[in-house]
Amino acid sequence: MNSHPLRQHIEEIIPLTDEEFAYIFGHFTTIYRRRHQYLVQEGELVNKEFWVVKGCLKSCFFDKEGKEHILQFAMENWWVTDYEAFNNRVEATVSVDCIEDCELLYISYEDREKLSSEMHKMERFWAKKTKLGYIALQNRILSLLKDPAKVRFEKLLKQYPLLFQRVPKKMIASYLGVSRETLSRLYT
Amino acid sequence: MNSHPLRQHIEEIIPLTDEEFAYIFGHFTTIYRRRHQYLVQEGELVNKEFWVVKGCLKSCFFDKEGKEHILQFAMENWWVTDYEAFNNRVEATVSVDCIEDCELLYISYEDREKLSSEMHKMERFWAKKTKLGYIALQNRILSLLKDPAKVRFEKLLKQYPLLFQRVPKKMIASYLGVSRETLSRLYT
Repeated sequence: MNSHPLRQHIEEIIPLTDEEFAYIFGHFTTIYRRRHQYLVQEGELVNKEFWVVKGCLKSCFFDKEGKEHILQFAMENWWVTDYEAFNNRVEATVSVDCIEDCELLYISYEDREKLSSEMHKMERFWAKKTKLGYIALQNRILSLLKDPAKVRFEKLLKQYPLLFQRVPKKMIASYLGVSRETLSRLYT
Repeated sequence: MNSHPLRQHIEEIIPLTDEEFAYIFGHFTTIYRRRHQYLVQEGELVNKEFWVVKGCLKSCFFDKEGKEHILQFAMENWWVTDYEAFNNRVEATVSVDCIEDCELLYISYEDREKLSSEMHKMERFWAKKTKLGYIALQNRILSLLKDPAKVRFEKLLKQYPLLFQRVPKKMIASYLGVSRETLSRLYT
């Protein structure tokens, strides 16, 4: 248990005792999903937040024309769910789908609230993770406002080179908000 | 002290005793800034997070061509700073400027960390605020990816009607990522 990847992940921010990690870990459940299976589906209530042990996922929105817009990718050590639905107890507006076969841990909304209330350390851990996520989203917005497609592409490639080996080009284009044709030009 | 707007703001999420609020409030300092004065300037270290008592501000980025991109507006009860610079102790990449004469409270990085560590309640308060901010940014990204300018304009108008009375059209256009000409067409 001492070397569980979730413990390493939490301890990047907050040191834990063996007892503390065992207690925290007791609130998580392991699940497996195959490629193309979903974890969250539009219109459903969302009671789980997922942590990726292994695999690659996307959270995406389908517009009225059926066009897919990718809000987030998630790989090993990332957290993913429909945060608005999970946090505000409303129906999902996005879907979370597996791009690869995935092994995940999930925690329920009630257990996340319980752990956060009982353990200041876990409140702090999630607060710090959320803050880092907030900063990343601000940077993405700024990039969407000011950077041409080529710069957005290069930034993503530099930040997450692995993503380009694991995710179809079509999805990268959707994440960047460019057409597939534009993306093809950027790859050359 | 019981009816201080900061107390009301915190108590929307976490109830406080008189003693707790007095202790928290002791870590804040009041400042006044005139229209066009800045709170955070690009290239400086950022040691303060601001809470708006009265007034209207913007956080913005100037690109190499000198074009302004607006990351965030802030009005009464909003928190604002350069979060990447404040959180990661690096130089500011954005500026925070007053659009109106402003009354603000600020807390230093050290005091914010201290309050969060000492008081689980404040950790929780800021964690919840950050989570709500995270969700709002995700929605803005989705809107930038999928919505035409007209829809982005209408959503902002519906969500923050006051903003349109307090902020020049040029800035609204910059926030929405549209040209001023496009925005003028949307107003009619």
